Amino acid sequence: MITRNYATPQDAEQAFYRAFELADLVEMMAVWAEEEDIVCVHPGGGRHSGVVEVRESWRQIFSQGPRLRFRLAGNRVFAGRMMSVHSVYEHVTVAGDPRPTNPVLSTNIYVLTDRGWRMLVHHASPLAPEAAPQEAPPSVLH
Amino acid sequence: MITRNYATPQDAEQAFYRAFELADLVEMMAVWAEEEDIVCVHPGGGRHSGVVEVRESWRQIFSQGPRLRFRLAGNRVFAGRMMSVHSVYEHVTVAGDPRPTNPVLSTNIYVLTDRGWRMLVHHASPLAPEAAPQEAPPSVLH
Repeated sequence: MITRNYATPQDAEQAFYRAFELADLVEMMAVWAEEEDIVCVHPGGGRHSGVVEVRESWRQIFSQGPRLRFRLAGNRVFAGRMMSVHSVYEHVTVAGDPRPTNPVLSTNIYVLTDRGWRMLVHHASPLAPEAAPQEAPPSVLH
Repeated sequence: MITRNYATPQDAEQAFYRAFELADLVEMMAVWAEEEDIVCVHPGGGRHSGVVEVRESWRQIFSQGPRLRFRLAGNRVFAGRMMSVHSVYEHVTVAGDPRPTNPVLSTNIYVLTDRGWRMLVHHASPLAPEAAPQEAPPSVLH
């Protein structure tokens, strides 16, 4: 177990998508708040809540190794003093497969803890291709 | 236009689902914060942001009149001082149709404004039937 200290919600978000791309379970869980209130919803799936369930959901996703690349678009942020809400379109590509997958829309919520900003909620849902904006500003990742 | 003053996030949530069931656009928009940061995602759809887009999305949904009934289950709340995050399963039935629809999982975010608690985000996504818990505590609505 490692401890990270993200100074801003944006730092935590960048770490989240980097851990996702690298399929790095330790770095992924370092982004999340260490409490039972955390909630994670993968596209089309049910709700995982609490550290144990959330970790297990990522372990399963990462079991195939790093294979996803994210291009983020349309990020909207509502910045509170203790909580920050981000809405973002994820355009995902799978390694070795040039075909675009359906876009995903995510609500990411970060809270300020005594160890910096951490993820409280990741709610991702699948979209029809035409429902997502195609113009993409430069991604935070690439 | 009417003004409501919801004293708690729970009051705002109850008003949200009541307006939804009644297909009452005025009461629905009275629940939402009056700002450009609001975000609304209907199941499988794209993102509506800002008062104009959010209102138009509800106008379209409500154009068929009141036809939906909600049974809520598994509500989880992360209560901050200025912001409150709710995760809830929605079991929806359509008037005149006894068949259950697929459940929906929603993340609802409320903010404390100078006019009480208002909705900032409603992100609803469709689930496979087996992905939702079937045990339902008494609903807040019925």
